[in-house]
Amino acid sequence: MTTPKQLSKRERNLSDIRDRAIPVAERIVLDEGVEALSARRLAREIGISVGSLYNAFGDLDAVVSAVISKSARLMSDVLRTAAEAPGGDRLQKVIAIGEAYLGFALENPMRWWLLFEFRPNLTLDERARAYQMGLLDMLITVGEGNPKSDTHRQFFLMLWASVHGLVSLACRPTIVAIEPEVARRFLSEMVISGFERFPPE
Amino acid sequence: MTTPKQLSKRERNLSDIRDRAIPVAERIVLDEGVEALSARRLAREIGISVGSLYNAFGDLDAVVSAVISKSARLMSDVLRTAAEAPGGDRLQKVIAIGEAYLGFALENPMRWWLLFEFRPNLTLDERARAYQMGLLDMLITVGEGNPKSDTHRQFFLMLWASVHGLVSLACRPTIVAIEPEVARRFLSEMVISGFERFPPE
Repeated sequence: MTTPKQLSKRERNLSDIRDRAIPVAERIVLDEGVEALSARRLAREIGISVGSLYNAFGDLDAVVSAVISKSARLMSDVLRTAAEAPGGDRLQKVIAIGEAYLGFALENPMRWWLLFEFRPNLTLDERARAYQMGLLDMLITVGEGNPKSDTHRQFFLMLWASVHGLVSLACRPTIVAIEPEVARRFLSEMVISGFERFPPE
Repeated sequence: MTTPKQLSKRERNLSDIRDRAIPVAERIVLDEGVEALSARRLAREIGISVGSLYNAFGDLDAVVSAVISKSARLMSDVLRTAAEAPGGDRLQKVIAIGEAYLGFALENPMRWWLLFEFRPNLTLDERARAYQMGLLDMLITVGEGNPKSDTHRQFFLMLWASVHGLVSLACRPTIVAIEPEVARRFLSEMVISGFERFPPE
């Protein structure tokens, strides 16, 4: 058996700063938008120097990433809760996940924006890829597909993409806005007609 | 007959500033991102005072809106060109529009971002709504639907939404990225299976 490595006093201090900074950063980003977050303001609000903040995070991007990660965990919890609700066949379960996806976007438009739309030139890191694969695996399992079949993986990815398009146009006005109520009505229709073409493996 | 209203010297001057500022603003936004655009920098690059810039535009948001409007016109041109290409049945024409939509997003990720993903709390103005309705009408016409039928309008809006989801996940990495080549392959499949459920009016 190994004992967890003891953190040095400095490491504990940096970790403590991170724990205090993230909720404050989150409140600023969710209430006022990501452009309202500055190192100076964040440091002031938690009562430390800008230097200490940079020591703890490296840069402000790392703070934003922490807020995004938290949003990713929250969305994942919402989807898994929908997936694990008792009762219903695979079709009803997949529709429930889609409705949870829509619900999350409508209730948390800023988190949705951070997860999917913030930064046009973001590169996908390994952790984000693993997260996405985890959600896709969950969807395949709930939809009773075979996670090892490429055809099935693509089927569920496309199903996800079509629901994503609906949700992303429904969760706030853009040049092609969709009323949330219309989206909700069509979401299940989209899943049902998708499953009519459920492919062999 | 009426003659076009003569512009005063002041109005001509402000209009001239707008004409010079927009391409410069566009270059900054497309090359460096919207956060690189400041009134000070824009005024300096076109050799006028910040005050004159504000006189011409009101605020920096109006400059960004002008860049967005230009992106909307460009995207509209690309889609209309695809729609008007000779040959093909309605299915092939709708697929061609979908592929043009994907192509525009892949070639102009920053314009796509500005059109659909910039600002989580944007309110839809009348002009944007008219633009969107114009594109939807074009799609319905090409798809040989009835623009006066609510069922048909919703059918084409949902078709648009599903293609939009595919494109938006394909045009850059987010937590659910799709390879552009996979997207291209599935786009036509999505349209074809959509048309299999083409509704009565």
